[in-house]
Amino acid sequence: MQHSATTGQAFYEALAEHGLIVPVGVPGAFGRGAVFEDVLRRFDAAVSRVAKEDGAERMLFPPILDRNVFEKSEFLDSFPQLAGSVHSFVGNDEQHRELRERVRQGKAWGDLQSMTGVVLSPAACYPVYPSFTGIVPEQGRLVDMQNWVFRHEPSPEPTRMQAFRVREFVRVGTANVVVCWRDMWLDRGLSLMRSLGLAAHAIAATDPFFGRGGRMLAASQRDQELKFEVVVPVLSEEAPTAVCSFNYHQEHFGKAFSIRTFDGAIAHTACLGFGMERVVMALFKTHGFQPREWPEAVRRRLWP
Amino acid sequence: MQHSATTGQAFYEALAEHGLIVPVGVPGAFGRGAVFEDVLRRFDAAVSRVAKEDGAERMLFPPILDRNVFEKSEFLDSFPQLAGSVHSFVGNDEQHRELRERVRQGKAWGDLQSMTGVVLSPAACYPVYPSFTGIVPEQGRLVDMQNWVFRHEPSPEPTRMQAFRVREFVRVGTANVVVCWRDMWLDRGLSLMRSLGLAAHAIAATDPFFGRGGRMLAASQRDQELKFEVVVPVLSEEAPTAVCSFNYHQEHFGKAFSIRTFDGAIAHTACLGFGMERVVMALFKTHGFQPREWPEAVRRRLWP
Repeated sequence: MQHSATTGQAFYEALAEHGLIVPVGVPGAFGRGAVFEDVLRRFDAAVSRVAKEDGAERMLFPPILDRNVFEKSEFLDSFPQLAGSVHSFVGNDEQHRELRERVRQGKAWGDLQSMTGVVLSPAACYPVYPSFTGIVPEQGRLVDMQNWVFRHEPSPEPTRMQAFRVREFVRVGTANVVVCWRDMWLDRGLSLMRSLGLAAHAIAATDPFFGRGGRMLAASQRDQELKFEVVVPVLSEEAPTAVCSFNYHQEHFGKAFSIRTFDGAIAHTACLGFGMERVVMALFKTHGFQPREWPEAVRRRLWP
Repeated sequence: MQHSATTGQAFYEALAEHGLIVPVGVPGAFGRGAVFEDVLRRFDAAVSRVAKEDGAERMLFPPILDRNVFEKSEFLDSFPQLAGSVHSFVGNDEQHRELRERVRQGKAWGDLQSMTGVVLSPAACYPVYPSFTGIVPEQGRLVDMQNWVFRHEPSPEPTRMQAFRVREFVRVGTANVVVCWRDMWLDRGLSLMRSLGLAAHAIAATDPFFGRGGRMLAASQRDQELKFEVVVPVLSEEAPTAVCSFNYHQEHFGKAFSIRTFDGAIAHTACLGFGMERVVMALFKTHGFQPREWPEAVRRRLWP
């Protein structure tokens, strides 16, 4: 992002002043106020109306993910810096005394915690892949979810959160089915954003791969057009914010979770997710902090 | 719980067979299906109707909590075994290679993670207390939330989850205001459950305090009547399941977060939370797996 942190901070403070978010002591973990949530629910319903005829299976997963699934996903190969693992205390009375003492004295206590069988979901689609294992029907499968996602990237900029909700659709089937579906949603996503008065456009995008090898991975991802984003100016025109992300995984999850198409080939998957809080923030930034003063056309779309 | 694990397992399998939950590889982290979520939303709306005239401030917090708030709350003194802290990778390229290698070989990698500034919310009310710091208005404050909670207690029994949602109300003010409010909701909670055809009753309860000192703490909590639960038979009549929990904290959070009443005294707080998934499971267990076949009076309450 090229905008300055000051701009992000100012927007954060404006959201807080209007009661849209509830500040907490750490960045990217603020509460959401009543009006913020109302707009989020209304946008969620607008997405449902767009997707109504698709016959998706609806699911919802908790914010935690089976650690085995996470390890199989190879997320740690590409984005170790963003993941969050869940650790717990499994000690005895004596170790508990040590833990209490450390906390009381403000000393580090992470080494008194042990890794558990779960991590935080690093992406909204990850929990669903193991349930596709086996042979998917001829027309493939389509799942519609709204899950919490964790990213370890504390920032004062309100659109960059440590925890946020994604309305996520996942398609599994042949390469052709999956890519056509992705392309259809790219159009739908753009239309939906524009119908809400947001100056959206689509871009080929890359993920923030870790380390020295990361640049190469990003270049390859861009060359193969595996990732697109619908972006909207929120804090700046030059560095617009991604509000919807489209990922074509090819055979990645099909291989990892033994998912096959009816003809025995490894299934392809793609997903797309609306960053729910980001869409809401884009609406407030574009149309002002009072929804009742938003343009009539936007209100009709959200309060139909 | 006195019922056998088999009973819990059988109920879990029945929920899965009917598509109400989506099994995953670890206990207590399953997905929720469309019908499950529909019932949950309808119960949530029923709670809103009961609370309509109370004028609560609505908020929603993410599943993560500021670690400083968590440390101040003294949760680790009482329930270290239930808490989950969030750890992340903050290493360099070389440490990343080590991390990848360990994951690939199925070796432990928890020691390559560092504790972050957040933990998982151990109770739905914790994120809100810091926002009360200062002097609360004469009539106190009332907040209404729906937050995800984490408890490190993996179990095959479906009502004992590692992650679940709580519709939580928090009251802050004088002791008298807070206790009267808690008593009013104890009646409301019982009535609401009974109106849904659930054989609910209220009991004085205790928390699962850790270690050797735990029994004494529990006895003191019971003597002072600080915790009540509305319980409903789900897996057995003898060991009914808590579906709503009422906690009177006295000055605990008022002291920890410097919350005062208008007359300068330390504020008292109480909270009550509906275990959303548990209520939904109680409905399925009591009335069967097909909501359209539920008793007319129950349906009228949820599909008004």
